[in-house]
Amino acid sequence: MSTSAGIRRRTIAGDDPQTLAGVGEFGLIAELRAALPAGPRTLVGIGDDAAVLATPDGRVVATTDCLADLAAMGAVPSALLVALAAPADLPVSWARELAAGLAAECARVPGAAVIGGDTARAASVLLAVTGLGDLAGRAPVLRSGSAPGDVVAVAGPLGHAAAGLALLAAGRTEGPLVAAQRRPAPPYDAGPEAADLGATAMIDISDGLLADLGHVADASGVLIDLSRAALGPGDSLLAAASFVSSGRTGRGSPTPPDVIALNWVLSGGEDHSLAATFPPGVALPPRWTPIGKVHPGQADPDGRRLGVVIDAQPWQHAAGWDHFA
Amino acid sequence: MSTSAGIRRRTIAGDDPQTLAGVGEFGLIAELRAALPAGPRTLVGIGDDAAVLATPDGRVVATTDCLADLAAMGAVPSALLVALAAPADLPVSWARELAAGLAAECARVPGAAVIGGDTARAASVLLAVTGLGDLAGRAPVLRSGSAPGDVVAVAGPLGHAAAGLALLAAGRTEGPLVAAQRRPAPPYDAGPEAADLGATAMIDISDGLLADLGHVADASGVLIDLSRAALGPGDSLLAAASFVSSGRTGRGSPTPPDVIALNWVLSGGEDHSLAATFPPGVALPPRWTPIGKVHPGQADPDGRRLGVVIDAQPWQHAAGWDHFA
Repeated sequence: MSTSAGIRRRTIAGDDPQTLAGVGEFGLIAELRAALPAGPRTLVGIGDDAAVLATPDGRVVATTDCLADLAAMGAVPSALLVALAAPADLPVSWARELAAGLAAECARVPGAAVIGGDTARAASVLLAVTGLGDLAGRAPVLRSGSAPGDVVAVAGPLGHAAAGLALLAAGRTEGPLVAAQRRPAPPYDAGPEAADLGATAMIDISDGLLADLGHVADASGVLIDLSRAALGPGDSLLAAASFVSSGRTGRGSPTPPDVIALNWVLSGGEDHSLAATFPPGVALPPRWTPIGKVHPGQADPDGRRLGVVIDAQPWQHAAGWDHFA
Repeated sequence: MSTSAGIRRRTIAGDDPQTLAGVGEFGLIAELRAALPAGPRTLVGIGDDAAVLATPDGRVVATTDCLADLAAMGAVPSALLVALAAPADLPVSWARELAAGLAAECARVPGAAVIGGDTARAASVLLAVTGLGDLAGRAPVLRSGSAPGDVVAVAGPLGHAAAGLALLAAGRTEGPLVAAQRRPAPPYDAGPEAADLGATAMIDISDGLLADLGHVADASGVLIDLSRAALGPGDSLLAAASFVSSGRTGRGSPTPPDVIALNWVLSGGEDHSLAATFPPGVALPPRWTPIGKVHPGQADPDGRRLGVVIDAQPWQHAAGWDHFA
């Protein structure tokens, strides 16, 4: 891009032009920039020291995990920053596909755009995405606002990504559950919708329903009682569980498919669906499925606080994902 | 933290409590949270799905590279998000030191705070930092606004971090230049100061003075002519170059120390000093050192655009850093 960078570029002109080393850092940035159009709030986009984003609300919501986190606060995702570290011999086509994937995800949210990022060299490909969002005047929906009497509801699938992962492991490479694992489609607009409906607490289900509702119960000081009947699982999960179960060999009695499927629903992460609590009497739109109720906080006979129970009973299996456990 | 996470935690109680696996993801987050106080603009800090930051200016400046990028736009850093990926056997003390370092960096900028982040497991330690900043009504200072007649000036040291790296490689482990490499101290407040003085273009010097001013020349369509006499190098760099040079063995005539030192000034990155262009006649505060002038864009006899020259002559050595070259 600059003359000085151009001089340096010529010293590596013999490299494969189809790798990052061949196009160079500035060639890569130009590729990404061309594939990622600015959005309506992008005041300064890719190519300067930093990006400038309009925040007419006077607040900005920010996460380094995933865009569904913004929705879980009641915000509309407005911008992405992408830090990419990669080996020098990475094919440029990989970066192009990444840019296409980012552009496709932005296209799911009207007004969202990639506004900046960073590139660096590393032994393996690493991607860190920062999402910024806009509350448009809404109060942020925290984990701590749930109160006894509230209704617990979810928007988006539960356990689909976990079922897809099990199907992949069992050799199946196609179908909607595998697609749910490979590219989850979080219901971004359900977050602001829930905020407008008066949601008292909300969370993005990334570590599993029980684990994430556990965070809400903990932050709000309440007990959440889920209804086994309302949780399903549905026919597609049961069929997947049967398929996975039929391929398993080993000693002892096999886990029944309905238990496998229920465990996906309760403990499977990565769907990035939203769970929220609403005051009693709120008329929920069809995509919000009621799955339980909020009660005053309780402890078990040993004095341990109960977080989430199912039909008033503690769940005895693994609750979710701890990155370091 | 939540009951459900607590159940999972007990399954790994035998692990070393001094590692991330021992404290678990939620223990780690609690550690980081305790070490990183909220700032005056932190509306929702560490612990919910996403953070909420006040942006009373109606715009937010964002970078995934370094805080000096925010200063180079004329913004005051206001918030950090930190994504940490680490092996499960990483000592917790490492994370504590990271938090202390982040807190110390925030303390250099009044009002700045860590507002959120993410943790994940990886084969090696990886850190991605997002910085958010506030323009307080200023127009962002881009790379593209420089005009013929402007004065080029820098705030902060040039080549100190590069000299420190060379000293470390030569076996010296102490002294201010080594400290400049290990912990650069970007002049964050010089960025808004330059914007208030009417700076027409500004950039954070992370890849080397020539390379980064090359970006300004390119974006602005100008030629930047630096003064060899104004660039130094000073006594400390010359002494370091003599030390490094005296330890070098090999065939051929050694590079003279003054050339080594000048190359650090021109091509050394990582100081994160700021370079800016100002309209002629602006009275610069003492920490802004004039180093050159801006001229209309020019091409060499082969038709290649000239970006940055020194005493009207092209510089023949490597200009700076390309992550993938």
